[in-house]
Order: sequence, then C-alpha cells, then structure tokens
Amino acid sequence: MAKSEAKELFKEFKIQSVSEFFRRNAAMLGYTGKVRSFTTLIHEAVTNALDACEEAGILPYVKVEIEELGKEHYKLIVEDNGPGIPEKFISHVFGKMLAGTKAHRNIQSRGQQGIGISGAVMFAQMTSGKATRVITSTGGDEIIEAWVMIDVEKNEGKVVKKIKHPNPTGWRGTRIEMEVKDVRYIRSKQGPYWYLKLTAIANPHAHIELIEPDGKLIVFPRGSEEIPKPPEEMKPHPRGVITDDLFRMAKKTRRSTVKRFLVGEFSRISSQKVSEIVKYVAALRLINGVEEEQKKKQLYERLANGEVDIILKSFGKRGKQTLRQVEKIMEKEPSKLTWHEAEEIIEAFKYIKFLAPPTSGLRPIGEENIEKGLTNILNPEFVTSLTRSPKVYRGGIPFQVEVALAFGGSLSGFDILRYANRVPLLFDAGSCVTTSAVRSVDWKRYKVDNLEDAPMVVFVNVISVHVPYTSTGKQSIASEEEIYEEIRLALMEIGRRLKKYLSGKHRKLHQVKRRRTLEKYVDEVAEALSILTEKPKEEIKPYFLGLIEKKFEAPEVEAAEGEA
Amino acid sequence: MAKSEAKELFKEFKIQSVSEFFRRNAAMLGYTGKVRSFTTLIHEAVTNALDACEEAGILPYVKVEIEELGKEHYKLIVEDNGPGIPEKFISHVFGKMLAGTKAHRNIQSRGQQGIGISGAVMFAQMTSGKATRVITSTGGDEIIEAWVMIDVEKNEGKVVKKIKHPNPTGWRGTRIEMEVKDVRYIRSKQGPYWYLKLTAIANPHAHIELIEPDGKLIVFPRGSEEIPKPPEEMKPHPRGVITDDLFRMAKKTRRSTVKRFLVGEFSRISSQKVSEIVKYVAALRLINGVEEEQKKKQLYERLANGEVDIILKSFGKRGKQTLRQVEKIMEKEPSKLTWHEAEEIIEAFKYIKFLAPPTSGLRPIGEENIEKGLTNILNPEFVTSLTRSPKVYRGGIPFQVEVALAFGGSLSGFDILRYANRVPLLFDAGSCVTTSAVRSVDWKRYKVDNLEDAPMVVFVNVISVHVPYTSTGKQSIASEEEIYEEIRLALMEIGRRLKKYLSGKHRKLHQVKRRRTLEKYVDEVAEALSILTEKPKEEIKPYFLGLIEKKFEAPEVEAAEGEA
Repeated sequence: MAKSEAKELFKEFKIQSVSEFFRRNAAMLGYTGKVRSFTTLIHEAVTNALDACEEAGILPYVKVEIEELGKEHYKLIVEDNGPGIPEKFISHVFGKMLAGTKAHRNIQSRGQQGIGISGAVMFAQMTSGKATRVITSTGGDEIIEAWVMIDVEKNEGKVVKKIKHPNPTGWRGTRIEMEVKDVRYIRSKQGPYWYLKLTAIANPHAHIELIEPDGKLIVFPRGSEEIPKPPEEMKPHPRGVITDDLFRMAKKTRRSTVKRFLVGEFSRISSQKVSEIVKYVAALRLINGVEEEQKKKQLYERLANGEVDIILKSFGKRGKQTLRQVEKIMEKEPSKLTWHEAEEIIEAFKYIKFLAPPTSGLRPIGEENIEKGLTNILNPEFVTSLTRSPKVYRGGIPFQVEVALAFGGSLSGFDILRYANRVPLLFDAGSCVTTSAVRSVDWKRYKVDNLEDAPMVVFVNVISVHVPYTSTGKQSIASEEEIYEEIRLALMEIGRRLKKYLSGKHRKLHQVKRRRTLEKYVDEVAEALSILTEKPKEEIKPYFLGLIEKKFEAPEVEAAEGEA
Repeated sequence: MAKSEAKELFKEFKIQSVSEFFRRNAAMLGYTGKVRSFTTLIHEAVTNALDACEEAGILPYVKVEIEELGKEHYKLIVEDNGPGIPEKFISHVFGKMLAGTKAHRNIQSRGQQGIGISGAVMFAQMTSGKATRVITSTGGDEIIEAWVMIDVEKNEGKVVKKIKHPNPTGWRGTRIEMEVKDVRYIRSKQGPYWYLKLTAIANPHAHIELIEPDGKLIVFPRGSEEIPKPPEEMKPHPRGVITDDLFRMAKKTRRSTVKRFLVGEFSRISSQKVSEIVKYVAALRLINGVEEEQKKKQLYERLANGEVDIILKSFGKRGKQTLRQVEKIMEKEPSKLTWHEAEEIIEAFKYIKFLAPPTSGLRPIGEENIEKGLTNILNPEFVTSLTRSPKVYRGGIPFQVEVALAFGGSLSGFDILRYANRVPLLFDAGSCVTTSAVRSVDWKRYKVDNLEDAPMVVFVNVISVHVPYTSTGKQSIASEEEIYEEIRLALMEIGRRLKKYLSGKHRKLHQVKRRRTLEKYVDEVAEALSILTEKPKEEIKPYFLGLIEKKFEAPEVEAAEGEA
C-alpha cells in the first residue's frame, strides 16, 4: 500500500464550532433520553428565569406551559417577570454558546457556563427544525418579539424574524416558546413536574405555575415574600487557587504591582500577609537549595510549624539576600510575574495560615424559608430545618449545608430531595454525597424504625461557588469529606428534633387516652361524691374537670415544644 | 432593595472561548484524578500516533517515555514514525480545540473530536506552565522543532519558539514532549502501563515501547506485519440519520437536485429507491389527511406492509396529484428543501426496506491478529478469537463485534479486556455492555467452574463509526440490545471452543495417566507371556508398546483439534 503524504492527509483539516461540537455531543448537556431531555429544557429555562430575577432583585413569577402537538412533539413555553433582555443581546443569549454574564465571575448561581439556554434552543432546532420565539421587554416602551435560530457552523445566533410591539402597560419579563420533538412528558420523579415541585420547595420566594399537556394547571404558590439577596462576587481564597489561576489572573489584572494584585484580588491577603508571603517564599527557596535530604526534611517541618523567622535567620546573610530578592517580586508589574514565581507563591500559600474564606457570597435559602417551602408544597405534619454555618473543603473552597426534614401529614414513603445551589438534582442519586450521608445516619435512633416506609422527606442543599460535581452531568456531588461530615452533623441534629417530636407525640397520645378514660368516670364519681357529701352533682363535676385539665396541661406544652 | 436594570446586568456579558470552557471543565476530557489524568494524556498522544500511521499506511513504531522530575511532576515523551505534521498546521493541531481532520467525516477512527491532543497540551500548560515541545518532519529536508502554547482566551495555538533543523537522514515522524504536574505514575490497571499493554494487544501491527520513570524499558513488540487498511469514509444509511442531519446535509451539498443529493450522499439509495421514497412520502401525506382515526390507523398498518401502490390508487385522482407534488420536491435544488419536507422523507425512510448499510468502512482487527496480539503479550496456553460479521443497531448504524479468549499459560485470574475501535476502555467497567454480556454467559457450561479464579482473559472489541457510549467520558458502551446479543453469541462460540480444548486436555491428561500405568506393567506382562509362550521377552515387549501407542493415537489428535 502506498504511503499517503502528510499534506494530503491534512487537506481535510477543518475547524468545528463549539455549537457543532455540542450538537454531536448533546448528551454532555443533559439531552439524553426522552424524559430527561424534557427536564433539561425546563431546567435551563427556569434556571435562567430565577437567576435573572435574583440578580435584579425581583420576586419571581414563572409560568411553564407544555402543549402536546403530536406524538413526542411538544411546545414548551416559559415566561418570567424578570429584568428582560436588551434587544442587542437577544441573539447572543439564545444563539451563541459560551456567551453569558456569569462564567467569568466568581459568584454562586444556578447556571454558570453560558451554554444552558442556547443549548436548549439548539436542541429544539435539532429536533423540530423550528426557531425559538422570544418575547421580552426590559420594561421600556417596547416589547421585542424575536425568532432565534443557531447557525451551528458559526456558533452564531440569528434573529430570523423580529417584530417590535408597543408596551403601554410597561410589561417587563421574558417569554420563550420552543417547539421540540423526541421528548416525552410523564409525571415521573425525573420529569418536569417533579423538577418544578422540587424547585418550588427550594425557592419559596418564587411563584411557579405549570400547565400540563392535558390542560391541568398546577400552582406552586409563593410561600415567602423575602427576596433573596443577589449573589455577590467573591474574591478567591489563596487556598482555593492553583498556579495557573494565579498566573493568568496576574496577566489580566490592571493593578500596578504584584503586591497590590495579591491584596486587591484575593480574599484574606492584607499588606501584612504579603510580608509573610515574602518570608515563606524566601524560606522555601533557601530550603530547596539544601542538599542534605535529612536536613531539608527537618527544615520543611519547621516551616510547617511557622518557624519562618528562625529559618531565615539561620541562613544568615544569604537569608537576608533572598528576602530582598523576593521582596522585589512584590514590586514588579503583575504581568511580569513568571510561572516559577507564581508556583513559589502558591507553594508558600500552603504553609501560611489564612483566615477562612469569607462566606458573605454564599446564599443559603434559610431555615424559615425552607420550612415554608416544605410546608407549602408537601403539607407535612412536622417540619424542621437547619442551616449550618459555612465551612471550607479542600482547604480553601467555602461551602454551606442546609438540611430539613418533613414528617407525616400528606407524606407517604421516604424520599431524599437533593439540591446544589437550590437546583434540584434528579439523576445519579446513587453516587451523590447527599445520598450516602443520609443513608449513613442510623435513623432508628431517632424513632424512625423503618426508613423506607416512613412518611418522611429529607431535604439537603449544598451551597458553594464551586460545587464538586462527580461528573459533567452535574447531577451528583462528590464525596468530599468535609461536605459529608457537615451533612451528617446537620442530619443528626434534625434527627434529634424529630425524635423529640415523635416522643412528645407518643406521650401526648398516651395522655389523651388517659384523660378520656378519666373523663368517662367523671359523671359516676361526681354522682357518688354528691351522695356522700350531699352537695349537688353540678357543683362537683366542674371541679373534677378542672382537676383533669390541670393535670394534663404541662405535658401538652412539652409536646408542643417539639414542634418549635 | 432597588431593582437592577437589565442593561446594567448585561454590562458583564462576555464570550468565553472553547478552551476556556474546557479549562474549567477538564474532567469532561478525562482529566480527573492523578492516575487517570496521566492515562488520558498518554491515550491522546498514542491515539493520535496510531491514527496518523493508519491513515498514511505506515506500520507504527511508538515510543513512550516517562521521566519523573519531582513529586507528581513528570515529563512525558511520545514519539512516532507517522506521516508528520506540515509546519503550518502545528499550532492548529496542538493549540486549537475543535480543529482536526476527522470530526466532519463519517469514518471509524480512534480519536474524533479534534480536542484530544490540544486538551493534553492545555492540561500540561495548566499544571506546569510549560509549552509542549513538538519535533516533527514529513520526511522532507527539514525537521521542525516548535514549542506550542494555547492562548486559552482566544482558543488559538501560539508557537512561542521555533527552530528548523536539517534532515539529512530523511527522518519522518512526530515527537511530543510535555511537562505535567499533579499526576501520578503507578502500575495499576488504570494506569499508563496497563493502557499501553492493552493497546499493544489490540494493535499487533504496532511496536510500542515504554520507558518507565525508574528507567525500566518495556517492549510490546510487533506481532504482525500487516498494515490495517486505512479507514474509509462511509456515506450515512437512511436509517441512521435524523431530520436535522438530512436538512443540514441538503443545505451544504453541491448536487443540483434533491434526487441527486439523496442518491449521491446516502448509502443504499438508488434512483429506483427515490421513486419508492416519492410514493411513500405521497402516501404518508394522504394518510395524514384522513380524519377518521380508525381508518388512518388501518392505512398506516397497510403502508407498513408495503401496500403503498394500493393505497395511492385508493385515493384516485388525489393520489396522482399528490404523487406529482412530491415528485417536484425531488427536482428542487437541495438547499430549497424545507424542514417539513425533510421530515416527511425521514418518516418515509422508516417504512421503506433498505439493504443493510455497507460495512466496508468497518475495520476489525481480525481473528489472526487478535490471537497474535494476545499470544505475544500475554503468553497464554490456549487462545481463540472470533470476528462476527457486521450487524446494525438502532435500525441503521453498522457495528461489528470481535471477541477472543486466552486461557492458562502465564495468566492468573480472570480479566475482561474492553475495547471500542481498538481503544482500551479502562474506566466505568460496571456500566459497559461488554461487562454485562461477559457476565451473562454461564461459563460453567464451558468448563470454567470458578470464573473469578480462572486463568482466563476475555477480549471484546466493539467497532463502529458511532460507538454508543454511555457518557461523555467515552469509557463504557451503552447496552444496545443488538450489540449485547452479538457479544453474547460470539462469547458462546468461543466458550464452546474453550470447552472442547479443556475436555481434550482433561481426556489427554487422563489418558497420559492410563498409558503410564499400562506402560508400567509392560515389563511384567511381557515376562509372564514370555514364560507362557516361550518366546523371548524382547520380542513381546515392542508389540505391547505398539498396541498402547495405537490405542492412544486417536484421542491425542482430537485433543489437538481444540487448539486449531
């Protein structure tokens, strides 16, 4: 066989667009299976709506409507009362992948990559051939109606038709209509209905409506009027970055020196901390130069113990020289920071004690809101929730855990409701840290004898700017030890509350029985006493009833406490 | 709280590059965990080398060298004797994601997306900050030495340093050197050593060498001189496309009519077939117009039975009119084909009988080669393999299954070697159809009593232009029923061969024992007979030995057959 020449082989060389790539790999975006694909579409649209409302400080009102047009053929309409989309961004938002306002900011939000909604537009286009109809207004004079398609080859949005309408009522919001095929609407636990129900529980400030294909209207009403605080951009913590992050940030910053860059763009780095960084970098340089392995090891250990000054001193003049060299790095322009220097700084970060990262950017739902959400949507007999204080995993990434428990009432059977940053996780439950943490708790200790049959729902929300997902589908959270432990601790606490409630309930039940028994005999006893004391029965009876009343007063209060 | 205006929120709107995206989502490309990340790097480099050699018709000689530079810090060198890379493509091949020669062609190859090797370059850069050194020549006068980095923000390759060397010996090939951190070299079943070993088994035409960090040289020598046929571009089969494929192909084609487009760009569509398509599209249009549900259903059933002519006739004049309308579609310019028409054609495809897709593009390894590979690398006592004929899954996607079995010899314990298009699959074994098919076989029937302890290796290679992976990691194959069944059938066949071999071996063993027993008594019997017959013992003995020889002749042949 003749060998082909390289230049001939490279004739076929072409560049694909990112849309083309995801068209071939739609499963990467969650479009896999007819039911899951539908849920993914709704997830993308609703996530966008809720995020937009949150950023703009608006109480969300989200309407989802699903029309069945044929076999596995639907129209999906999602409308919100969010801030709307300025005309010039419409084609980008819906038609260009990897374009958005969030990916480059260090904020906690539901969506992140700038792929979600354009992925949905592409999926609709791929299956039905139809453009997505967008109706939006930022509340000004106009309502824009635009049909958007994606030019897959170019990864460009194309507005194929546009109409401007007057906006006399000052309507503000966004309405998306997409036609899709090869999807199926069913009311399973992985379908749209369940997804929206779980979303409503975790977002009690949102009013969510669903019109199902058969015309049935389901309302998940707002349970709280409190608008969540908009997400806040967080500066990265020194322990949460790798060399490449530091290096690239240094190339992009506008600060004039490395020192200003470190102080200005990281959390927990003060001017004083920079002096400490200088000392540690110098010490590490000196230690790395030591030839004798045993001594080197000892020095590292001492550095880990914080003896940086002593170490520097022990190197005498060379110590001082090195310190001065490193000081010069801090006065350089950040763009001149070398990879090696960035590496040294990152290495020093590992030895330095920093305050835990600030957690002001974390946005828990809040205990009261979760309880409102659960009560509102599930109507249980008992509900309790716990928001733990923020913690850190992998040394520098802040996260926070919220759990809740609903018991009895309209509930039947056991369920775990899993969330990451308020977004319901419906798939891959088996590999999720929330599942393993919930399963690891010995529920029998909390009076739940048969977990699977218990009328109980456990709610877990993991909050972080960087949720450690196990896979690209973002449907399960990795078993980071700190996260696992936090969930367990929280669950044990609410388990104790449940136990108290159930104990109270048992005692109360027992006492109600005794009281009824006593009350049954009041008449007879009153009559007997009336004969003995010769007082009228009508006087004696209220006295006895008062006595019984008094006796059962205290325990009732105690039982009620369990519900507090 | 004040509501934020939309235009303010959109101030932050930015466009990410695809490199930026994969930098944040390196796990999508297989860079997850220190061991797996290393394997992924090697996989990308070796896959590129083998694919390039195959396309160029070269017997591959691949050298992999791993140097340990520090803790979790390595240099990886991969050199091949492939066709080389023309100078002007170097920055694209190594520095630009989604650029390559394969993604847009319908061919069977190891790599496909044009992300692999640039992803590796990015991972190296992200962890070590270093450029990848590429030394390549297409065999001409020059050797190009280039250091490539990725401009992540722009998704552009940058050659940061370039040197041209003379090439007096006419060397041809490519050598890549990358420095990486945060990876770990271990000799586990998910590490580089095992990956290369499995690659060598499935590619006996390749010579593969590995120098481990401790300097140990491991050679997987070439076992076959047969150069595999270069992959062939395959036209899609009508049953393997969706509306969006047809629609987009029609927009891009240069053919003058829809008819020519269908005949020219699909397999199994002849001019005659186009007339059939016209009839079916017309019939479907007519049936769709029928109001009465019962009648409609009947007509669909009759159409599925192939009664298209009768149906058209039954509509009389309208039938003829519709037929003429549809005929006009076939004479249109393809770019004018509407989505709806494309949809109708795809719908008609489902009713029409097509020949199975051509399978000339499928490239099995071949029975002889697999056996060479297994013998060469594993040194078993018995080996057998089976390449099944091509089949189709999901109605139109051709695939082919190869299985092999190695038993005894140097083997200890049971293993499944999984491959897709000759590429070893090391992860997610649990969810792979190959695993479930192998486990579903009742190996006891084939004389393997205790599978887990059997000195046995089962090899499975699934070949297809579109391997149905379960997830984006491309490490496990979905349980498509046809694929599952093909693997099972093949395994049962080689199971029977194993049984025959083991039976023969048992019988042979048994007979060797009996023969030895008989031979032990030859002396005594000969002596006794010598006394009785008064003939010399020396005459009688050879006669007896001959008798024994004869008796055990046949079974030995039979036993040997099992090995054929």
